[in-house]
Amino acid sequence: MGQEPLTDYLHLFDGLLNLTQMYGRYTQELGAYAKEEAARLREDGALRRTTSVRGQAPELLEYEKDPCAKCQVCTSRCQKFLISRVGEDWIFLILLGLLMALVSWAMDYTIAFCQQAQKWMYGGLHSNMLLQYVAWVTYPVVLITFSAGFTQILAPQAVGSGIPEMKTILRGVVLKEYLTFKTFVAKVIGLTCALGSGMPLGKEGPFVHVASLCAALLSKFMALFGGIYMNELRNTEMLSAACAVGVGCCFAAPIGGVLFSIEVTSTFFAVRNYWRGFFAATFSAFIFRVLAVWNKDEETITALFKTRFRLDFPFDLQELPAFAVLGITSGFGGALYVYLNRIIVESMRKQKTINKFLLKKRLVYPAVVTLLISTLTFPPGFGQFMAGQLTQHESLVALFDNQTWYKQGVAEEFVYSSHVPQAWKHPQVSVFITLLLFIVMKFWMSAVATTMPVPCGAFMPVFLIGAAFGRLVGESMAAVFPDGIHTDSTVYPIVPGGYAVVGAAALSGAVTHTVSTAVIVFELTGQISHILPVMIAVILANAVAQSLQPSLYDSIIRIQKLPYLPELGWGQEKYNIRVEDIMVRDVRYITLSSSYRDLQEALITGQLKTLALVESKESMILLGSMERSQLQSLLSQQLSRARRLEYLRERAQDNGTHVPTFPQDSPPRTGRGVLYIFFFFTFNSFNFFQNILFQIAEWEEQQLEEAVNFNNCKIDPAPFQLVERTSLHKTHTIFSLLGLDHAYVTSTGRLVGVVSLKELRKAIEGSVTVTGVKVRPPLASFRDSGNSSSVSEVTELHKLWSRHRSLPLPREPNLPDLDDQTEQPSEGSLVNETECTELSSQNSPLHTDDQSELRYADATPQEDYLAQLPCDCTHPLKDGGSEAVGEQSPAPMEKVVSEGSPLPSKGQPE
Amino acid sequence: MGQEPLTDYLHLFDGLLNLTQMYGRYTQELGAYAKEEAARLREDGALRRTTSVRGQAPELLEYEKDPCAKCQVCTSRCQKFLISRVGEDWIFLILLGLLMALVSWAMDYTIAFCQQAQKWMYGGLHSNMLLQYVAWVTYPVVLITFSAGFTQILAPQAVGSGIPEMKTILRGVVLKEYLTFKTFVAKVIGLTCALGSGMPLGKEGPFVHVASLCAALLSKFMALFGGIYMNELRNTEMLSAACAVGVGCCFAAPIGGVLFSIEVTSTFFAVRNYWRGFFAATFSAFIFRVLAVWNKDEETITALFKTRFRLDFPFDLQELPAFAVLGITSGFGGALYVYLNRIIVESMRKQKTINKFLLKKRLVYPAVVTLLISTLTFPPGFGQFMAGQLTQHESLVALFDNQTWYKQGVAEEFVYSSHVPQAWKHPQVSVFITLLLFIVMKFWMSAVATTMPVPCGAFMPVFLIGAAFGRLVGESMAAVFPDGIHTDSTVYPIVPGGYAVVGAAALSGAVTHTVSTAVIVFELTGQISHILPVMIAVILANAVAQSLQPSLYDSIIRIQKLPYLPELGWGQEKYNIRVEDIMVRDVRYITLSSSYRDLQEALITGQLKTLALVESKESMILLGSMERSQLQSLLSQQLSRARRLEYLRERAQDNGTHVPTFPQDSPPRTGRGVLYIFFFFTFNSFNFFQNILFQIAEWEEQQLEEAVNFNNCKIDPAPFQLVERTSLHKTHTIFSLLGLDHAYVTSTGRLVGVVSLKELRKAIEGSVTVTGVKVRPPLASFRDSGNSSSVSEVTELHKLWSRHRSLPLPREPNLPDLDDQTEQPSEGSLVNETECTELSSQNSPLHTDDQSELRYADATPQEDYLAQLPCDCTHPLKDGGSEAVGEQSPAPMEKVVSEGSPLPSKGQPE
Repeated sequence: MGQEPLTDYLHLFDGLLNLTQMYGRYTQELGAYAKEEAARLREDGALRRTTSVRGQAPELLEYEKDPCAKCQVCTSRCQKFLISRVGEDWIFLILLGLLMALVSWAMDYTIAFCQQAQKWMYGGLHSNMLLQYVAWVTYPVVLITFSAGFTQILAPQAVGSGIPEMKTILRGVVLKEYLTFKTFVAKVIGLTCALGSGMPLGKEGPFVHVASLCAALLSKFMALFGGIYMNELRNTEMLSAACAVGVGCCFAAPIGGVLFSIEVTSTFFAVRNYWRGFFAATFSAFIFRVLAVWNKDEETITALFKTRFRLDFPFDLQELPAFAVLGITSGFGGALYVYLNRIIVESMRKQKTINKFLLKKRLVYPAVVTLLISTLTFPPGFGQFMAGQLTQHESLVALFDNQTWYKQGVAEEFVYSSHVPQAWKHPQVSVFITLLLFIVMKFWMSAVATTMPVPCGAFMPVFLIGAAFGRLVGESMAAVFPDGIHTDSTVYPIVPGGYAVVGAAALSGAVTHTVSTAVIVFELTGQISHILPVMIAVILANAVAQSLQPSLYDSIIRIQKLPYLPELGWGQEKYNIRVEDIMVRDVRYITLSSSYRDLQEALITGQLKTLALVESKESMILLGSMERSQLQSLLSQQLSRARRLEYLRERAQDNGTHVPTFPQDSPPRTGRGVLYIFFFFTFNSFNFFQNILFQIAEWEEQQLEEAVNFNNCKIDPAPFQLVERTSLHKTHTIFSLLGLDHAYVTSTGRLVGVVSLKELRKAIEGSVTVTGVKVRPPLASFRDSGNSSSVSEVTELHKLWSRHRSLPLPREPNLPDLDDQTEQPSEGSLVNETECTELSSQNSPLHTDDQSELRYADATPQEDYLAQLPCDCTHPLKDGGSEAVGEQSPAPMEKVVSEGSPLPSKGQPE
Repeated sequence: MGQEPLTDYLHLFDGLLNLTQMYGRYTQELGAYAKEEAARLREDGALRRTTSVRGQAPELLEYEKDPCAKCQVCTSRCQKFLISRVGEDWIFLILLGLLMALVSWAMDYTIAFCQQAQKWMYGGLHSNMLLQYVAWVTYPVVLITFSAGFTQILAPQAVGSGIPEMKTILRGVVLKEYLTFKTFVAKVIGLTCALGSGMPLGKEGPFVHVASLCAALLSKFMALFGGIYMNELRNTEMLSAACAVGVGCCFAAPIGGVLFSIEVTSTFFAVRNYWRGFFAATFSAFIFRVLAVWNKDEETITALFKTRFRLDFPFDLQELPAFAVLGITSGFGGALYVYLNRIIVESMRKQKTINKFLLKKRLVYPAVVTLLISTLTFPPGFGQFMAGQLTQHESLVALFDNQTWYKQGVAEEFVYSSHVPQAWKHPQVSVFITLLLFIVMKFWMSAVATTMPVPCGAFMPVFLIGAAFGRLVGESMAAVFPDGIHTDSTVYPIVPGGYAVVGAAALSGAVTHTVSTAVIVFELTGQISHILPVMIAVILANAVAQSLQPSLYDSIIRIQKLPYLPELGWGQEKYNIRVEDIMVRDVRYITLSSSYRDLQEALITGQLKTLALVESKESMILLGSMERSQLQSLLSQQLSRARRLEYLRERAQDNGTHVPTFPQDSPPRTGRGVLYIFFFFTFNSFNFFQNILFQIAEWEEQQLEEAVNFNNCKIDPAPFQLVERTSLHKTHTIFSLLGLDHAYVTSTGRLVGVVSLKELRKAIEGSVTVTGVKVRPPLASFRDSGNSSSVSEVTELHKLWSRHRSLPLPREPNLPDLDDQTEQPSEGSLVNETECTELSSQNSPLHTDDQSELRYADATPQEDYLAQLPCDCTHPLKDGGSEAVGEQSPAPMEKVVSEGSPLPSKGQPE
């Protein structure tokens, strides 16, 4: 009876020690727990799969109590065949395409209905303008507020476009809860409401996200039938096909969809995945348009915004300069749009008061923005000067019209059946002014509107603005050359609609930094006759925009602080900078003979997520890399409560004291803990505990001196290696090819440095500035590119060789080789050596275990209000070097694993 | 006086020894010579560059003796600016586009002229049918024979398409003399003659080659102005842009060109290179069409084969099944075409007598084929039933015609202005028969014609056959449904021209395994209204053809035995096979403590091009890899004549004999050698020499026992490494991503095996057979995929750890670890272990030296007559395992280097 309290005291004491001394223990234990949980779930899944696959056939046979045995066998075979086919890619792609077409069509239908409802309400109240205004304004405010609130409550990940996040995911980064069913529901309903409100928002980006969600969920569902869906790379391939489907069924543009999604989400594209995208996008676009035919909207399958430009003489050769000017101006406009969008977000963030207020009242901002925009577009008000009553779809149809608007004074010109161009006519104001106002107003409106925390994209508004700008240029041309430029007998008047097409492609190309918008417009309009003007304008717009600003999606990636790798510039400096100029030389490492104390030090001083494992301090031969969590678990095992108690018990036995055994598994519960603290202070036996304290401290010192036992460790046996001489260009290529996060720099097996995404980014952004002035690292020019490297290499080898020669002898404590390296003048390195602490981790591309899924899952909720992914997105490369990225906050980690996130990791091209 | 003969005897003796004993010395010496030569040339080039860049400005200033100094400064600045701009990519791309447009236009013009000349001749002789026949037949025979002969003499590399070779080059393999000026001339002139003959040959593939030649030559030329053009990766990027230009300006189809060239030449595509292709191809297509306008061929820029299908109702939804059937049939047809083409080549090769005869009389085969084909197409003869008088261009225009041909009995139907469809009308034979005959005859004719040794492609003939087939289906549909399928009020008759477009895209897509032929037809016809039928047909055709046969280009790659990596199949087996199942465990390696004898043995037994360098036999820690040539040079240095003589001289001095010095540099000249052999046998002093012989043998033994000194060696310090657990799928991805040729398999730093392209190919082709039956490696099913690997990994580490623990002590001669590995049951490995001898070499992707250019440059002249690249192409992976690929036949190597081949090596993504 008297002995039980002792054990409990020990227990308690142990707990106290744990809290004060055991660095990172809580994290580690939960990490381990998460892993076990994941393993259990995986086993469960496997079990369920086996039962479902094997169990299903007999069960169904049971059900179909058919007297005809032959028929039964036949059915069973059919089922087996069908189940085996389920694993095929094309089944998946067809299902994905079908699903997305249905979703797309249903959403379009609902959105059109919502917009009609607004029109109807507005029209019904035509007697009272105030009521009309209230109806016109209230309707979108309610819808947007609902959309923002609904998304906020259900799944904040659904906010925004989706393309930046998909680009990050396809690069191998795991974004937590980004592809769940909740997010799907939030995105679909939120997007429908947001677009139904008639605000200048787009659906392309969100559709990419919706399609990816569909693919992820479908993959999860189909994993019930076969094992292939659990494969990580397979999922990545399917996700990239899904992106194509998203764009493809949004515009009924399969080819453009595939190309656009490649340009926007990939840095390197596997041609073998090409057909997947085409197949799924074509099927989806087909079904999407067939639904329109069945719904009697269309007579047959045609383009979404069909144009009817003349075929025999689409444009004159001498119009090409005008198209080129249009392209260049669009380039500037696109860059301005990206800049404006970023400035709005950043200025809102900087204003602490505004930011705080908005964080509290999350729905105020969208409501205010909607109120402002809908007020300005109120048709009897300012809206009359900017065709405010038209929806995006109607505006686009009007802008692509193949009539010339300039002669609008003559009413007979408007033989075009619908009433649409009427909206652009104003008795007092010329069509040029209307178009100009439309462009200017829509420009800032859509830049502001896309910052609202609702699911929305920016492609479609930009496309519309581009079309309007093109129309403006076209109408001006038509005004200047009323009979066309062509000097021959036949008069071919200028087609302003063609300019609108060119402008739409150019501006949207400039904003997104893509060329495939050209293909999208051909598919959207169903005409390819303007191919050369479109291509020229798009390329020029891209050239201008790319030299001024990042693409809209890259801009959002930077705003949200998602990990990214900037593109290389055009200069030749990238070939002259080498890894040795940018690498971090002070690498944290552990050796095979490290003691636990070394381990503890490495864990405390370094904040990397992986540590290099080298053979010995002298040889520095890289053997592999280990996860920080692995090492933490090693350390905590060594100093574990169980072992400590074991030691104390043994010691007590040696001293003749009887220490009873007690269940080691039961963790100290908090209630009990408090009780015993009370107990402890009331009936203290201070000396006894002080004695034990000393014993334990001594024991710990002793334990830390022991050499680490790596027996149960998981080691990445082939982390990616570079050589010092590798050029920046090649490093960039390899990093983007393999989706690496860091690579060790070795020289004939010896570890000499490490390069992470961060160093690479600094090197690229430092050397290739926006203004085009390029700075080379100071040492690069002094280096003789011919043979210096091979000399150093030989020297290294020589060292190794001499060392090896002297190996059988006991070694003299010679100068460690790493110090040789760090003693070299390091003026050439762009990166401060102390900054290596923030090396975020990613496994080698040759590593197949599941830990990769845990990467970047360590989220701290983001509190920036205006970021379009407001919370739970992960930003391992956030800000300066101060934040510990390697640290895993335990709860999200557990969550990700226990939810069995279906996310892929392209970082490892398995 | 008496002592001089002694030295010369020694000299001679040494030479004899060299011949008998010094394995591979000749090769090595020439290799070294070649390297020196290359270095010299490079220095020369650098010198020339500096003089040209720096010397130019003053020189020109000298020339422009302007009194106005200000103007002079201004001019100089302008020049500097221009020269600095020359390095920019876009300048290069514009020049490339311009050049190719001019070449393309000039060739088209000449070809059209040649074809017109034939028509004119044929028409002029209408009085005498025999003369007509002779003229009709002689003209193409002469042209083709000239083309074959000219190409054969000037540059046999110019024969054939060019796409398979470009695919190989872009994969990182160097094909000797494939991108030289000679080849350019041969290709352009040969192709013009071949196409001018009117044979069913294409120009797309050759144009890809011509564009690549242009890029390579332009790159060489522009390297005179700036250094960036010497960069290997840059050249690769430019070559891939050039491929796009080639297709783009051939069809005036920039988008299709870019996509087609990506699909056909790449496995992984860098999206950042995307714009290059678009930019260059658009510019080229633009100039190409502008030239047509300037030449008054066209009124404005339009599509090459402009169609005028109605826009409002291009096709009915119910026609889609017909399009699908068309696609599926095209898929079978495409596979049949590839099969037929390969069968023709292979059957000709197998017939030894025919092959021998044709090798002697190289011009007989093309002449006979041309005679046969032109006889059959003779318009008054059989040609009247198959529109034989039409050129490809005319046929295509006719097939894409938007009139229906079925009602051809009524002459008034032919309101179409030109006389073209007349050729398809025959008083006795229905148009269906004509079309059918056209398809069947052209099918085998073009399959045969493309095997002729002239520059030619197969795309255009296949495209034409597809169009005819589509027309046939369309006309049949029109015959069955004369008033269209649509049941509503409006009658929309069926458009057979649309079917022709769909058929053309589907068949050419099936033959080339590409989807982008869809885009090409849109650009060619200038109409995109049939997008859905085209996409559906192309995808179905691809699905069928890909499951039956490789693409035409892959088929040619296999016929020519170029190195390749097959695509992975669709199954999930690729995820279950692992590197440990396919790797070669018996790796040749050298250690840091290897003696020269070990080196000699490794060089004799293994026939790899690189050898692994490990720390020691016990640790097996991989430090790097070394070129075989490096090691040979080490060995020959150790046993060099100079050192041997030095030894003999020292020895003689020790014995009191006076051995005079003599010029060591002068090599033994053959004339002198023969003289001394005579001298030697006449006045022999046999004992003296025998004594020396023994001394030398003893000395050599002694030398071989010495440990190798790696001081002056070039070592690849980071060869690519995989882990045993890496799946086949991931391995395939990495090999194609990085263009690897082999990778070492390591386990925590220890070398355990090697995987080369060959093993990978065997594994893929073994597991995924053509018939769809997939064989898994026997061991794969026994393996527990869960944790076996991690256990083995831990064991490995444990070994290493224990070894390290015992390191300071003298080591016991424990069992080498490699033997542990090889003792494991190796039933699972697909590859016989002895087959590792044929590991062809490629450096690690992280290796930057110039040696890579020498890879695959070791050509043995190919004697297969029908291979479209008849000689000097390189096939390092030829045939079985018996051929020594690593061996460098010295002459070609020297040649490649001394010509300063501008070839890139994508294998190393520097």
